[in-house]
Amino acid sequence: MNKIYPYKRKVYYYETDKMSIMHHSNYIRILEETRISILNQAGKPFEEIEALGILMPVLSVDCQYKSPLRFDDEFTVYPKIVKFNGTIMELDYRIVNSTTGKLCAEGHSTHCFTDTSLKPIRTKSKFPEIYRIFNDCYESEITD
Amino acid sequence: MNKIYPYKRKVYYYETDKMSIMHHSNYIRILEETRISILNQAGKPFEEIEALGILMPVLSVDCQYKSPLRFDDEFTVYPKIVKFNGTIMELDYRIVNSTTGKLCAEGHSTHCFTDTSLKPIRTKSKFPEIYRIFNDCYESEITD
Amino acid sequence: MNKIYPYKRKVYYYETDKMSIMHHSNYIRILEETRISILNQAGKPFEEIEALGILMPVLSVDCQYKSPLRFDDEFTVYPKIVKFNGTIMELDYRIVNSTTGKLCAEGHSTHCFTDTSLKPIRTKSKFPEIYRIFNDCYESEITD
Amino acid sequence: MNKIYPYKRKVYYYETDKMSIMHHSNYIRILEETRISILNQAGKPFEEIEALGILMPVLSVDCQYKSPLRFDDEFTVYPKIVKFNGTIMELDYRIVNSTTGKLCAEGHSTHCFTDTSLKPIRTKSKFPEIYRIFNDCYESEITD
Repeated sequence: MNKIYPYKRKVYYYETDKMSIMHHSNYIRILEETRISILNQAGKPFEEIEALGILMPVLSVDCQYKSPLRFDDEFTVYPKIVKFNGTIMELDYRIVNSTTGKLCAEGHSTHCFTDTSLKPIRTKSKFPEIYRIFNDCYESEITD
Repeated sequence: MNKIYPYKRKVYYYETDKMSIMHHSNYIRILEETRISILNQAGKPFEEIEALGILMPVLSVDCQYKSPLRFDDEFTVYPKIVKFNGTIMELDYRIVNSTTGKLCAEGHSTHCFTDTSLKPIRTKSKFPEIYRIFNDCYESEITD
Repeated sequence: MNKIYPYKRKVYYYETDKMSIMHHSNYIRILEETRISILNQAGKPFEEIEALGILMPVLSVDCQYKSPLRFDDEFTVYPKIVKFNGTIMELDYRIVNSTTGKLCAEGHSTHCFTDTSLKPIRTKSKFPEIYRIFNDCYESEITD
Repeated sequence: MNKIYPYKRKVYYYETDKMSIMHHSNYIRILEETRISILNQAGKPFEEIEALGILMPVLSVDCQYKSPLRFDDEFTVYPKIVKFNGTIMELDYRIVNSTTGKLCAEGHSTHCFTDTSLKPIRTKSKFPEIYRIFNDCYESEITD
Protein backbone atom coordinates (compact mmCIF):
# COMPACT_ATOMS: atom_id res chain seq x y z
CA MET A 1 0.00 0.00 0.00
CA ASN A 2 1.33 3.43 -0.90
CA LYS A 3 -1.66 5.62 -0.25
CA ILE A 4 -3.74 6.19 2.83
CA TYR A 5 -7.18 7.55 2.07
CA PRO A 6 -8.64 9.89 4.64
CA TYR A 7 -11.55 8.84 6.83
CA LYS A 8 -14.93 10.55 6.49
CA ARG A 9 -18.26 10.53 8.23
CA LYS A 10 -20.88 12.87 9.68
CA VAL A 11 -21.42 13.93 13.28
CA TYR A 12 -24.19 11.90 14.94
CA TYR A 13 -26.91 13.61 16.94
CA TYR A 14 -25.92 11.76 20.12
CA GLU A 15 -22.37 13.10 19.78
CA THR A 16 -23.52 16.67 20.37
CA ASP A 17 -23.75 18.25 23.82
CA LYS A 18 -25.76 21.14 25.25
CA MET A 19 -23.33 23.64 23.68
CA SER A 20 -24.73 22.26 20.35
CA ILE A 21 -21.27 21.12 19.29
CA MET A 22 -19.69 17.67 19.10
CA HIS A 23 -18.50 16.81 22.60
CA HIS A 24 -14.72 17.00 22.78
CA SER A 25 -14.35 13.41 23.99
CA ASN A 26 -15.80 12.11 20.72
CA TYR A 27 -12.82 13.37 18.73
CA ILE A 28 -10.70 10.82 20.60
CA ARG A 29 -13.07 8.10 19.38
CA ILE A 30 -12.84 9.40 15.83
CA LEU A 31 -9.05 9.04 15.95
CA GLU A 32 -9.60 5.35 16.75
CA GLU A 33 -12.10 4.95 13.90
CA THR A 34 -9.47 6.45 11.62
CA ARG A 35 -6.77 4.01 12.76
CA ILE A 36 -9.12 1.09 12.11
CA SER A 37 -9.78 2.53 8.64
CA ILE A 38 -6.05 2.63 7.87
CA LEU A 39 -5.70 -1.05 8.75
CA ASN A 40 -8.72 -2.03 6.68
CA GLN A 41 -7.17 -0.16 3.75
CA ALA A 42 -3.89 -1.98 4.34
CA GLY A 43 -5.76 -5.27 4.00
CA LYS A 44 -5.16 -6.26 7.60
CA PRO A 45 -8.27 -5.65 9.69
CA PHE A 46 -7.56 -5.00 13.35
CA GLU A 47 -9.64 -8.10 14.08
CA GLU A 48 -6.99 -10.25 12.39
CA ILE A 49 -4.20 -8.52 14.25
CA GLU A 50 -5.89 -9.24 17.57
CA ALA A 51 -6.44 -12.83 16.44
CA LEU A 52 -2.63 -13.17 16.26
CA GLY A 53 -2.46 -12.26 19.94
CA ILE A 54 -1.29 -8.71 19.28
CA LEU A 55 -2.83 -5.79 21.15
CA MET A 56 -2.17 -2.12 20.47
CA PRO A 57 -3.08 -0.24 23.66
CA VAL A 58 -3.05 3.54 23.56
CA LEU A 59 -0.15 4.99 25.55
CA SER A 60 -1.14 8.61 25.10
CA VAL A 61 -3.51 10.81 23.20
CA ASP A 62 -3.83 14.53 22.77
CA CYS A 63 -6.11 16.82 20.84
CA GLN A 64 -6.20 20.56 20.13
CA TYR A 65 -9.67 21.89 19.33
CA LYS A 66 -9.67 24.65 16.71
CA SER A 67 -13.20 25.02 15.41
CA PRO A 68 -16.27 23.09 16.54
CA LEU A 69 -18.06 20.45 14.48
CA ARG A 70 -21.83 20.46 14.73
CA PHE A 71 -24.57 17.91 14.16
CA ASP A 72 -24.56 16.34 10.69
CA ASP A 73 -21.36 18.16 9.63
CA GLU A 74 -19.24 15.91 7.48
CA PHE A 75 -15.62 15.78 8.56
CA THR A 76 -12.51 14.28 6.99
CA VAL A 77 -9.64 12.92 9.05
CA TYR A 78 -6.13 12.91 7.56
CA PRO A 79 -4.00 10.49 9.54
CA LYS A 80 -0.23 10.11 9.27
CA ILE A 81 2.02 7.59 10.96
CA VAL A 82 4.89 9.82 12.13
CA LYS A 83 6.91 7.21 14.01
CA PHE A 84 7.16 3.43 13.74
CA ASN A 85 9.93 1.22 15.04
CA GLY A 86 8.12 -2.11 15.26
CA THR A 87 7.14 -1.69 18.91
CA ILE A 88 6.01 1.93 19.23
CA MET A 89 3.84 3.79 16.71
CA GLU A 90 2.85 7.43 16.72
CA LEU A 91 0.23 9.12 14.56
CA ASP A 92 -0.77 12.67 13.75
CA TYR A 93 -4.29 13.51 12.67
CA ARG A 94 -5.94 16.55 11.13
CA ILE A 95 -9.74 16.70 11.37
CA VAL A 96 -11.20 19.02 8.76
CA ASN A 97 -14.79 20.13 8.04
CA SER A 98 -15.38 18.49 4.65
CA THR A 99 -17.65 21.29 3.45
CA THR A 100 -15.74 24.38 4.54
CA GLY A 101 -12.24 22.92 4.56
CA LYS A 102 -11.73 24.51 7.97
CA LEU A 103 -9.34 22.78 10.38
CA CYS A 104 -11.43 21.55 13.33
CA ALA A 105 -8.88 19.68 15.42
CA GLU A 106 -5.39 18.26 15.44
CA GLY A 107 -4.64 15.07 17.31
CA HIS A 108 -1.77 12.79 18.15
CA SER A 109 -1.66 9.28 19.58
CA THR A 110 1.05 6.87 20.72
CA HIS A 111 0.61 3.09 20.71
CA CYS A 112 2.57 0.08 21.80
CA PHE A 113 2.43 -3.35 20.20
CA THR A 114 2.01 -5.89 23.02
CA ASP A 115 1.05 -9.50 23.63
CA THR A 116 -2.25 -10.27 25.35
CA SER A 117 -0.65 -9.75 28.77
CA LEU A 118 0.19 -6.20 27.63
CA LYS A 119 3.95 -6.93 27.45
CA PRO A 120 5.65 -5.02 24.58
CA ILE A 121 6.72 -7.09 21.58
CA ARG A 122 9.03 -6.49 18.61
CA THR A 123 6.89 -7.04 15.56
CA LYS A 124 9.94 -6.88 13.25
CA SER A 125 11.25 -10.24 14.45
CA LYS A 126 8.10 -11.88 15.85
CA PHE A 127 5.44 -10.80 13.32
CA PRO A 128 7.32 -9.68 10.18
CA GLU A 129 4.14 -9.49 8.09
CA ILE A 130 2.55 -7.13 10.61
CA TYR A 131 5.78 -5.13 10.74
CA ARG A 132 5.78 -4.80 6.96
CA ILE A 133 2.16 -3.61 6.83
CA PHE A 134 2.68 -0.86 9.38
CA ASN A 135 6.03 0.08 7.88
CA ASP A 136 4.39 0.46 4.47
CA CYS A 137 1.75 2.70 6.05
CA TYR A 138 4.53 4.63 7.78
CA GLU A 139 6.00 5.59 4.44
CA SER A 140 2.66 6.24 2.77
CA GLU A 141 1.25 9.43 1.42
CA ILE A 142 -2.22 10.61 2.43
CA THR A 143 -4.35 11.19 -0.64
CA ASP A 144 -7.80 12.73 -0.98
CA MET B 1 -30.72 -9.10 51.85
CA ASN B 2 -34.25 -7.80 52.23
CA LYS B 3 -33.91 -4.23 51.03
CA ILE B 4 -32.74 -2.80 47.75
CA TYR B 5 -31.62 0.78 48.00
CA PRO B 6 -32.26 2.95 44.99
CA TYR B 7 -29.41 4.14 42.81
CA LYS B 8 -28.55 7.83 42.60
CA ARG B 9 -26.23 10.06 40.64
CA LYS B 10 -26.19 13.28 38.65
CA VAL B 11 -26.39 13.78 34.88
CA TYR B 12 -22.94 14.33 33.37
CA TYR B 13 -22.32 17.15 30.92
CA TYR B 14 -21.31 14.73 28.16
CA GLU B 15 -24.65 12.91 28.56
CA THR B 16 -26.57 15.95 27.29
CA ASP B 17 -27.33 16.55 23.63
CA LYS B 18 -28.14 19.65 21.60
CA MET B 19 -31.73 19.65 22.92
CA SER B 20 -30.04 20.39 26.30
CA ILE B 21 -31.48 17.22 27.80
CA MET B 22 -29.91 13.87 28.66
CA HIS B 23 -29.75 11.87 25.46
CA HIS B 24 -32.33 9.09 25.54
CA SER B 25 -29.74 6.33 24.98
CA ASN B 26 -28.07 7.15 28.29
CA TYR B 27 -31.11 6.01 30.26
CA ILE B 28 -30.41 2.49 29.01
CA ARG B 29 -26.89 2.77 30.46
CA ILE B 30 -28.30 3.99 33.77
CA LEU B 31 -30.47 0.88 33.99
CA GLU B 32 -27.27 -1.16 33.76
CA GLU B 33 -25.56 0.93 36.44
CA THR B 34 -28.58 0.26 38.63
CA ARG B 35 -28.38 -3.51 38.12
CA ILE B 36 -24.70 -3.46 39.07
CA SER B 37 -25.62 -1.49 42.17
CA ILE B 38 -28.18 -4.13 43.21
CA LEU B 39 -25.56 -6.85 42.97
CA ASN B 40 -23.01 -4.85 44.94
CA GLN B 41 -25.67 -4.38 47.63
CA ALA B 42 -26.37 -8.11 47.59
CA GLY B 43 -22.68 -8.72 48.33
CA LYS B 44 -22.07 -10.38 44.99
CA PRO B 45 -20.34 -7.98 42.61
CA PHE B 46 -21.01 -8.71 38.95
CA GLU B 47 -17.24 -9.22 38.59
CA GLU B 48 -17.48 -12.31 40.82
CA ILE B 49 -20.46 -13.64 38.89
CA GLU B 50 -18.55 -13.34 35.62
CA ALA B 51 -15.56 -15.02 37.30
CA LEU B 52 -17.80 -18.08 37.81
CA GLY B 53 -18.32 -18.22 34.05
CA ILE B 54 -21.81 -16.77 34.21
CA LEU B 55 -22.88 -14.07 31.78
CA MET B 56 -26.12 -12.13 31.88
CA PRO B 57 -26.73 -10.78 28.39
CA VAL B 58 -29.61 -8.39 27.87
CA LEU B 59 -32.45 -9.99 25.89
CA SER B 60 -34.58 -6.89 25.65
CA VAL B 61 -34.85 -3.41 27.00
CA ASP B 62 -37.49 -0.73 26.78
CA CYS B 63 -37.91 2.75 28.13
CA GLN B 64 -40.73 5.31 28.22
CA TYR B 65 -39.57 8.89 28.52
CA LYS B 66 -41.86 11.06 30.64
CA SER B 67 -39.95 14.20 31.59
CA PRO B 68 -36.41 15.11 30.56
CA LEU B 69 -33.41 15.13 32.88
CA ARG B 70 -30.95 17.96 32.35
CA PHE B 71 -27.30 18.54 33.11
CA ASP B 72 -26.39 18.10 36.80
CA ASP B 73 -29.91 17.00 37.78
CA GLU B 74 -29.74 14.33 40.44
CA PHE B 75 -31.90 11.32 39.67
CA THR B 76 -32.90 8.27 41.68
CA VAL B 77 -33.57 4.89 40.10
CA TYR B 78 -35.96 2.49 41.83
CA PRO B 79 -35.35 -1.00 40.44
CA LYS B 80 -37.52 -4.03 41.05
CA ILE B 81 -36.96 -7.61 39.98
CA VAL B 82 -40.40 -8.57 38.68
CA LYS B 83 -39.58 -12.06 37.41
CA PHE B 84 -36.89 -14.60 38.31
CA ASN B 85 -36.93 -18.30 37.61
CA GLY B 86 -33.22 -19.07 37.78
CA THR B 87 -32.63 -18.65 34.04
CA ILE B 88 -34.60 -15.56 33.07
CA MET B 89 -34.80 -12.35 35.06
CA GLU B 90 -36.91 -9.27 34.38
CA LEU B 91 -36.66 -5.90 36.04
CA ASP B 92 -38.78 -2.75 36.17
CA TYR B 93 -37.19 0.63 36.86
CA ARG B 94 -38.57 4.06 37.75
CA ILE B 95 -36.20 6.97 37.20
CA VAL B 96 -37.20 9.99 39.27
CA ASN B 97 -35.77 13.52 39.52
CA SER B 98 -34.42 13.48 43.08
CA THR B 99 -35.16 17.17 43.65
CA THR B 100 -38.66 17.49 42.21
CA GLY B 101 -39.80 13.91 42.68
CA LYS B 102 -41.08 13.98 39.10
CA LEU B 103 -41.14 10.70 37.19
CA CYS B 104 -38.63 11.02 34.34
CA ALA B 105 -38.69 7.57 32.78
CA GLU B 106 -39.87 4.01 33.25
CA GLY B 107 -37.81 1.12 32.00
CA HIS B 108 -37.87 -2.63 31.76
CA SER B 109 -35.16 -5.17 30.93
CA THR B 110 -35.01 -8.92 30.41
CA HIS B 111 -31.87 -10.96 31.01
CA CYS B 112 -30.77 -14.54 30.58
CA PHE B 113 -28.21 -16.37 32.70
CA THR B 114 -25.80 -18.10 30.31
CA ASP B 115 -22.42 -19.75 30.22
CA THR B 116 -19.55 -18.04 28.41
CA SER B 117 -20.72 -19.48 25.09
CA LEU B 118 -24.04 -17.68 25.70
CA LYS B 119 -25.94 -20.94 26.29
CA PRO B 120 -28.70 -20.57 28.92
CA ILE B 121 -28.06 -22.20 32.29
CA ARG B 122 -30.25 -23.08 35.28
CA THR B 123 -28.67 -21.32 38.21
CA LYS B 124 -30.95 -23.14 40.68
CA SER B 125 -29.15 -26.46 40.14
CA LYS B 126 -25.76 -25.34 38.81
CA PHE B 127 -25.06 -22.23 40.91
CA PRO B 128 -27.35 -22.44 43.96
CA GLU B 129 -25.61 -19.55 45.76
CA ILE B 130 -26.18 -17.28 42.77
CA TYR B 131 -29.78 -18.45 42.56
CA ARG B 132 -30.31 -17.66 46.23
CA ILE B 133 -28.88 -14.13 45.89
CA PHE B 134 -31.10 -13.21 42.97
CA ASN B 135 -34.11 -14.93 44.52
CA ASP B 136 -33.59 -12.87 47.69
CA CYS B 137 -33.46 -9.72 45.56
CA TYR B 138 -36.60 -10.88 43.76
CA GLU B 139 -38.54 -10.83 47.01
CA SER B 140 -36.99 -7.61 48.29
CA GLU B 141 -38.59 -4.28 49.01
CA ILE B 142 -37.13 -1.10 47.53
CA THR B 143 -36.42 1.40 50.29
CA ASP B 144 -35.31 5.03 50.14
CA MET C 1 -39.54 9.84 -2.25
CA ASN C 2 -40.83 6.31 -2.66
CA LYS C 3 -37.92 4.25 -1.45
CA ILE C 4 -36.08 4.20 1.83
CA TYR C 5 -32.63 2.75 1.56
CA PRO C 6 -31.37 0.86 4.57
CA TYR C 7 -28.62 2.29 6.76
CA LYS C 8 -25.23 0.55 6.97
CA ARG C 9 -22.04 0.89 8.90
CA LYS C 10 -19.55 -1.16 10.90
CA VAL C 11 -19.27 -1.62 14.66
CA TYR C 12 -16.63 0.67 16.15
CA TYR C 13 -14.07 -0.67 18.60
CA TYR C 14 -15.26 1.68 21.36
CA GLU C 15 -18.79 0.29 20.98
CA THR C 16 -17.70 -3.14 22.24
CA ASP C 17 -17.72 -4.11 25.89
CA LYS C 18 -15.86 -6.71 27.93
CA MET C 19 -18.18 -9.47 26.62
CA SER C 20 -16.54 -8.64 23.22
CA ILE C 21 -19.90 -7.70 21.75
CA MET C 22 -21.44 -4.36 20.88
CA HIS C 23 -22.88 -2.94 24.09
CA HIS C 24 -26.66 -3.12 24.02
CA SER C 25 -27.09 0.64 24.59
CA ASN C 26 -25.40 1.38 21.27
CA TYR C 27 -28.24 -0.21 19.31
CA ILE C 28 -30.47 2.60 20.57
CA ARG C 29 -28.01 5.09 19.10
CA ILE C 30 -27.99 3.23 15.80
CA LEU C 31 -31.77 3.58 15.60
CA GLU C 32 -31.26 7.34 15.81
CA GLU C 33 -28.56 7.28 13.11
CA THR C 34 -31.03 5.42 10.93
CA ARG C 35 -33.79 8.00 11.46
CA ILE C 36 -31.38 10.78 10.49
CA SER C 37 -30.47 8.80 7.38
CA ILE C 38 -34.15 8.54 6.36
CA LEU C 39 -34.53 12.31 6.59
CA ASN C 40 -31.37 12.96 4.61
CA GLN C 41 -32.71 10.62 1.94
CA ALA C 42 -36.02 12.49 1.98
CA GLY C 43 -34.11 15.69 1.23
CA LYS C 44 -34.97 17.25 4.58
CA PRO C 45 -32.02 17.03 6.95
CA PHE C 46 -32.99 16.99 10.61
CA GLU C 47 -30.96 20.20 10.97
CA GLU C 48 -33.47 22.01 8.75
CA ILE C 49 -36.40 20.58 10.68
CA GLU C 50 -34.94 21.85 13.95
CA ALA C 51 -34.31 25.23 12.26
CA LEU C 52 -38.08 25.48 11.77
CA GLY C 53 -38.52 25.19 15.53
CA ILE C 54 -39.67 21.58 15.38
CA LEU C 55 -38.28 19.02 17.82
CA MET C 56 -38.92 15.29 17.71
CA PRO C 57 -38.24 13.97 21.20
CA VAL C 58 -38.28 10.23 21.74
CA LEU C 59 -41.32 9.10 23.72
CA SER C 60 -40.33 5.46 23.96
CA VAL C 61 -37.84 3.01 22.61
CA ASP C 62 -37.49 -0.74 22.83
CA CYS C 63 -35.11 -3.30 21.47
CA GLN C 64 -34.99 -7.10 21.38
CA TYR C 65 -31.49 -8.54 21.08
CA LYS C 66 -31.32 -11.67 18.96
CA SER C 67 -27.68 -12.25 18.00
CA PRO C 68 -24.69 -10.13 19.01
CA LEU C 69 -22.77 -7.86 16.68
CA ARG C 70 -19.01 -7.80 17.19
CA PHE C 71 -16.21 -5.38 16.41
CA ASP C 72 -15.98 -4.39 12.73
CA ASP C 73 -19.10 -6.38 11.76
CA GLU C 74 -21.04 -4.53 9.12
CA PHE C 75 -24.72 -4.25 9.91
CA THR C 76 -27.71 -3.04 7.89
CA VAL C 77 -30.72 -1.38 9.48
CA TYR C 78 -34.11 -1.65 7.77
CA PRO C 79 -36.38 1.07 9.15
CA LYS C 80 -40.09 1.37 8.57
CA ILE C 81 -42.46 4.12 9.65
CA VAL C 82 -45.40 2.11 10.95
CA LYS C 83 -47.55 4.97 12.22
CA PHE C 84 -47.75 8.66 11.32
CA ASN C 85 -50.59 11.03 12.03
CA GLY C 86 -48.79 14.35 11.85
CA THR C 87 -48.09 14.55 15.58
CA ILE C 88 -46.99 11.05 16.56
CA MET C 89 -44.66 8.81 14.55
CA GLU C 90 -43.70 5.21 15.23
CA LEU C 91 -40.93 3.23 13.56
CA ASP C 92 -39.91 -0.40 13.43
CA TYR C 93 -36.31 -1.39 12.75
CA ARG C 94 -34.59 -4.63 11.87
CA ILE C 95 -30.80 -4.72 12.40
CA VAL C 96 -29.16 -7.44 10.32
CA ASN C 97 -25.56 -8.62 10.06
CA SER C 98 -24.71 -7.58 6.48
CA THR C 99 -22.37 -10.53 5.94
CA THR C 100 -24.38 -13.40 7.39
CA GLY C 101 -27.86 -11.96 6.92
CA LYS C 102 -28.62 -12.97 10.49
CA LEU C 103 -31.16 -10.89 12.39
CA CYS C 104 -29.30 -9.18 15.25
CA ALA C 105 -31.97 -6.99 16.81
CA GLU C 106 -35.44 -5.61 16.35
CA GLY C 107 -36.31 -2.17 17.61
CA HIS C 108 -39.21 0.21 17.84
CA SER C 109 -39.41 3.90 18.67
CA THR C 110 -42.18 6.45 19.19
CA HIS C 111 -41.72 10.16 18.60
CA CYS C 112 -43.75 13.32 19.04
CA PHE C 113 -43.48 16.45 16.91
CA THR C 114 -43.24 19.40 19.29
CA ASP C 115 -42.31 23.06 19.37
CA THR C 116 -39.15 24.14 21.17
CA SER C 117 -40.99 24.18 24.50
CA LEU C 118 -41.76 20.48 23.91
CA LYS C 119 -45.49 21.15 23.33
CA PRO C 120 -47.00 18.79 20.70
CA ILE C 121 -47.83 20.32 17.33
CA ARG C 122 -49.93 19.22 14.35
CA THR C 123 -47.57 19.28 11.40
CA LYS C 124 -50.45 18.72 8.95
CA SER C 125 -51.82 22.24 9.48
CA LYS C 126 -48.76 24.10 10.81
CA PHE C 127 -45.95 22.63 8.69
CA PRO C 128 -47.59 20.99 5.66
CA GLU C 129 -44.25 20.48 3.86
CA ILE C 130 -42.88 18.57 6.84
CA TYR C 131 -46.12 16.60 7.07
CA ARG C 132 -45.84 15.66 3.40
CA ILE C 133 -42.23 14.48 3.72
CA PHE C 134 -42.95 12.18 6.64
CA ASN C 135 -46.20 11.01 5.10
CA ASP C 136 -44.30 10.07 1.92
CA CYS C 137 -41.80 8.14 4.03
CA TYR C 138 -44.71 6.49 5.85
CA GLU C 139 -45.92 4.98 2.61
CA SER C 140 -42.46 4.10 1.31
CA GLU C 141 -40.97 0.74 0.59
CA ILE C 142 -37.59 -0.22 2.04
CA THR C 143 -35.25 -1.29 -0.72
CA ASP C 144 -31.78 -2.79 -0.53
CA MET D 1 -12.72 27.47 49.50
CA ASN D 2 -9.21 26.33 50.33
CA LYS D 3 -9.45 22.62 49.69
CA ILE D 4 -10.38 20.67 46.60
CA TYR D 5 -11.55 17.18 47.37
CA PRO D 6 -10.68 14.54 44.82
CA TYR D 7 -13.38 12.97 42.64
CA LYS D 8 -14.23 9.30 42.99
CA ARG D 9 -16.40 6.77 41.28
CA LYS D 10 -16.32 3.25 39.84
CA VAL D 11 -15.87 2.13 36.23
CA TYR D 12 -19.21 1.32 34.59
CA TYR D 13 -19.66 -1.86 32.59
CA TYR D 14 -20.45 0.07 29.40
CA GLU D 15 -17.16 1.93 29.74
CA THR D 16 -15.17 -1.25 29.14
CA ASP D 17 -14.12 -2.45 25.69
CA LYS D 18 -13.21 -5.85 24.26
CA MET D 19 -9.72 -5.60 25.82
CA SER D 20 -11.66 -5.78 29.15
CA ILE D 21 -10.31 -2.40 30.20
CA MET D 22 -11.92 1.03 30.39
CA HIS D 23 -11.84 2.48 26.89
CA HIS D 24 -9.25 5.26 26.69
CA SER D 25 -11.77 7.86 25.50
CA ASN D 26 -13.68 7.59 28.77
CA TYR D 27 -10.77 9.06 30.75
CA ILE D 28 -11.38 12.31 28.87
CA ARG D 29 -14.98 12.25 30.09
CA ILE D 30 -13.83 11.62 33.65
CA LEU D 31 -11.66 14.73 33.51
CA GLU D 32 -14.83 16.68 32.72
CA GLU D 33 -16.74 15.04 35.58
CA THR D 34 -13.88 16.10 37.85
CA ARG D 35 -14.02 19.73 36.69
CA ILE D 36 -17.76 19.82 37.38
CA SER D 37 -17.09 18.38 40.83
CA ILE D 38 -14.59 21.19 41.59
CA LEU D 39 -17.18 23.82 40.72
CA ASN D 40 -19.87 22.16 42.80
CA GLN D 41 -17.42 22.14 45.72
CA ALA D 42 -16.71 25.83 45.11
CA GLY D 43 -20.43 26.51 45.47
CA LYS D 44 -20.80 27.60 41.86
CA PRO D 45 -22.35 24.83 39.78
CA PHE D 46 -21.42 24.96 36.12
CA GLU D 47 -25.15 25.38 35.41
CA GLU D 48 -25.06 28.79 37.11
CA ILE D 49 -21.94 29.81 35.22
CA GLU D 50 -23.61 28.96 31.90
CA ALA D 51 -26.71 30.88 33.05
CA LEU D 52 -24.50 34.00 33.22
CA GLY D 53 -23.71 33.50 29.53
CA ILE D 54 -20.23 32.14 30.18
CA LEU D 55 -19.01 29.06 28.31
CA MET D 56 -15.78 27.20 28.97
CA PRO D 57 -14.93 25.29 25.80
CA VAL D 58 -12.03 22.87 25.89
CA LEU D 59 -9.05 24.15 23.89
CA SER D 60 -6.93 21.07 24.32
CA VAL D 61 -6.77 17.84 26.24
CA ASP D 62 -4.12 15.19 26.65
CA CYS D 63 -3.84 11.97 28.60
CA GLN D 64 -1.04 9.50 29.31
CA TYR D 65 -2.25 5.99 30.10
CA LYS D 66 -0.12 4.21 32.72
CA SER D 67 -2.11 1.26 34.03
CA PRO D 68 -5.58 0.17 32.92
CA LEU D 69 -8.73 0.51 35.00
CA ARG D 70 -11.16 -2.38 34.77
CA PHE D 71 -14.88 -2.85 35.35
CA ASP D 72 -16.06 -1.81 38.82
CA ASP D 73 -12.59 -0.53 39.86
CA GLU D 74 -12.93 2.53 42.02
CA PHE D 75 -10.70 5.38 40.92
CA THR D 76 -9.83 8.74 42.47
CA VAL D 77 -9.04 11.81 40.40
CA TYR D 78 -6.76 14.49 41.88
CA PRO D 79 -7.25 17.69 39.89
CA LYS D 80 -5.12 20.82 40.16
CA ILE D 81 -5.60 24.17 38.46
CA VAL D 82 -2.06 24.92 37.27
CA LYS D 83 -2.76 28.14 35.40
CA PHE D 84 -5.49 30.77 35.67
CA ASN D 85 -5.40 34.32 34.37
CA GLY D 86 -9.10 35.08 34.13
CA THR D 87 -9.43 34.05 30.49
CA ILE D 88 -7.41 30.85 30.17
CA MET D 89 -7.37 27.99 32.69
CA GLU D 90 -5.22 24.88 32.68
CA LEU D 91 -5.61 21.80 34.86
CA ASP D 92 -3.53 18.75 35.65
CA TYR D 93 -5.16 15.51 36.76
CA ARG D 94 -3.88 12.30 38.30
CA ILE D 95 -6.21 9.29 38.08
CA VAL D 96 -5.38 6.67 40.69
CA ASN D 97 -6.82 3.23 41.42
CA SER D 98 -8.44 3.84 44.82
CA THR D 99 -7.76 0.30 46.03
CA THR D 100 -4.18 -0.23 44.92
CA GLY D 101 -3.04 3.40 44.88
CA LYS D 102 -1.52 2.75 41.47
CA LEU D 103 -1.31 5.67 39.05
CA CYS D 104 -3.60 4.86 36.11
CA ALA D 105 -3.41 8.01 34.01
CA GLU D 106 -2.24 11.58 33.98
CA GLY D 107 -4.19 14.23 32.11
CA HIS D 108 -4.11 17.89 31.26
CA SER D 109 -6.73 20.24 29.84
CA THR D 110 -6.83 23.87 28.71
CA HIS D 111 -10.00 25.96 28.72
CA CYS D 112 -11.04 29.41 27.62
CA PHE D 113 -13.75 31.53 29.22
CA THR D 114 -15.97 32.82 26.41
CA ASP D 115 -19.34 34.43 25.81
CA THR D 116 -22.07 32.42 24.10
CA SER D 117 -20.65 33.30 20.67
CA LEU D 118 -17.40 31.64 21.82
CA LYS D 119 -15.53 34.97 21.98
CA PRO D 120 -12.96 35.07 24.84
CA ILE D 121 -13.85 37.22 27.83
CA ARG D 122 -11.87 38.60 30.80
CA THR D 123 -13.66 37.33 33.85
CA LYS D 124 -11.57 39.56 36.14
CA SER D 125 -13.31 42.73 34.93
CA LYS D 126 -16.59 41.37 33.56
CA PHE D 127 -17.47 38.66 36.09
CA PRO D 128 -15.39 39.37 39.22
CA GLU D 129 -17.29 36.81 41.34
CA ILE D 130 -16.51 34.08 38.82
CA TYR D 131 -12.90 35.24 38.68
CA ARG D 132 -12.63 35.05 42.46
CA ILE D 133 -14.06 31.51 42.61
CA PHE D 134 -11.63 30.13 40.05
CA ASN D 135 -8.74 32.10 41.51
CA ASP D 136 -9.49 30.60 44.93
CA CYS D 137 -9.50 27.14 43.36
CA TYR D 138 -6.23 27.99 41.62
CA GLU D 139 -4.53 28.50 44.97
CA SER D 140 -6.18 25.53 46.65
CA GLU D 141 -4.66 22.39 48.01
CA ILE D 142 -6.01 18.98 46.99
CA THR D 143 -6.93 16.97 50.06
CA ASP D 144 -8.03 13.36 50.43
